[in-house]
Amino acid sequence: MTVRQLSLPELADSCAESGIGKVGLWREPVRAYGLRETAALVRSAGLEVTTLCRGGFLTATDPGERAAALADNRRAVEEAAALGTDTLVLVSGGLPPGSKDLRAARERVADALAELAPCAEEHGVRLAVEPLHPMFAADRCVVSTLAQALDLAERFPAHQVGVAVDTYHVWWDDQAPAQIARAGAQGRIHAFQLADWTTPLPAGVLNGRGRLGDGSIDLREWCGRVAAAGYTGPVEVEIFNEDLWARDGREVLKETAERFLEHAG
Amino acid sequence: MTVRQLSLPELADSCAESGIGKVGLWREPVRAYGLRETAALVRSAGLEVTTLCRGGFLTATDPGERAAALADNRRAVEEAAALGTDTLVLVSGGLPPGSKDLRAARERVADALAELAPCAEEHGVRLAVEPLHPMFAADRCVVSTLAQALDLAERFPAHQVGVAVDTYHVWWDDQAPAQIARAGAQGRIHAFQLADWTTPLPAGVLNGRGRLGDGSIDLREWCGRVAAAGYTGPVEVEIFNEDLWARDGREVLKETAERFLEHAG
Repeated sequence: MTVRQLSLPELADSCAESGIGKVGLWREPVRAYGLRETAALVRSAGLEVTTLCRGGFLTATDPGERAAALADNRRAVEEAAALGTDTLVLVSGGLPPGSKDLRAARERVADALAELAPCAEEHGVRLAVEPLHPMFAADRCVVSTLAQALDLAERFPAHQVGVAVDTYHVWWDDQAPAQIARAGAQGRIHAFQLADWTTPLPAGVLNGRGRLGDGSIDLREWCGRVAAAGYTGPVEVEIFNEDLWARDGREVLKETAERFLEHAG
Repeated sequence: MTVRQLSLPELADSCAESGIGKVGLWREPVRAYGLRETAALVRSAGLEVTTLCRGGFLTATDPGERAAALADNRRAVEEAAALGTDTLVLVSGGLPPGSKDLRAARERVADALAELAPCAEEHGVRLAVEPLHPMFAADRCVVSTLAQALDLAERFPAHQVGVAVDTYHVWWDDQAPAQIARAGAQGRIHAFQLADWTTPLPAGVLNGRGRLGDGSIDLREWCGRVAAAGYTGPVEVEIFNEDLWARDGREVLKETAERFLEHAG
């Protein structure tokens, strides 16, 4: 997503140029390029797919919408398996129109996980519940903290459900370091993502994530916390940023790799 | 602040018209109108000043800036006393330029409270530490949760330092109900404010608070929680919203009073 202006073949080429052997993919470009075609592309390029983003949006109360969401998440599990990744990241979804009940929405996420986790296991895929920053609680993700995500994940075996830790979403939370330790001790850190926090936020707040090193987050410290919790998996850089998307994607990828080494490596 | 387009005399008139006997004031309009003049105005209008907003911004590392901030907060205490309110709301301040250390910034807030709390007590004023939504952690307030605010407040007697509970800032937090109970049991709920959460957020995110009833917050439930914690003080409505500020202030005040009764009263 950091370089969404690149087509998937361009992305594969650029990763090779920059010595990047692993990449997290999003479903939309995969579907646009074709699932089989993408699987063949990453295989022939020797690229490992770290995670597939994203399933989720599991908070609807309308039965039809809920069934559609579950079906879509089952497809996402199959897509993840086809791409050779063992991790599907879930963004839980916001409040349904007119609802003010965060607790009930979080329970509907738990109910949906109970339906999806066995299906995911059958495909060799783990679900990673990603807490999103509390500014997204109403319209995108009712799971706002690592503690909440772990409370949900702990209802299931760790090889079925864990969490995604994204610095952008948890950096403000003084409880997050302890929750990372809790997640690590249970083997539930299924994904780890970096983005920096910069202000002012743009309208809609979705696409204002900062380049590594430009913001307020001590990224190296967070990397250390995750490592200390036993995490040895890939570190993804996921930056939604209009300015980056307007630039040459290959240059952004190269710069991001350099900034990763400078600020987090 | 909800009707900042009104001059202070207009505000006093409008409150009388709407049967509102209590009002929270901000320092800027008070200073513009004159402290003595404002005190005389509210006295003659029979208006009670609920809180003065705001002191704070106590996170600077530069010694000169820090001394200036402390001096300014002492003035704020004196202003509160002159206006006849017993409560000064504190917005702690964000990270200093270049800093990524939230923990150290929070400790500087604690150090500043230790200097200010006795001075406040001498003037019969309580300090109310207000946690702001985590989206403000970098640039406005490093205190993001009621738990953090109470951890700070508990270092001091309750009649010196408590917390301000604002639904806009805490509604997403599943720990907030328990923290309200904790604050109430200690007699530390020194202010209670309402605003609703609406999306999309505007650029800069400061002035996008929703009118009561327009958003995702179950305001009546939060009022119930605060009441169940023993709070019997005033309920303020504090909405930063460009659309409201562009309208006729008297009309906004009347509408806000009606919405309060409909959604929270």
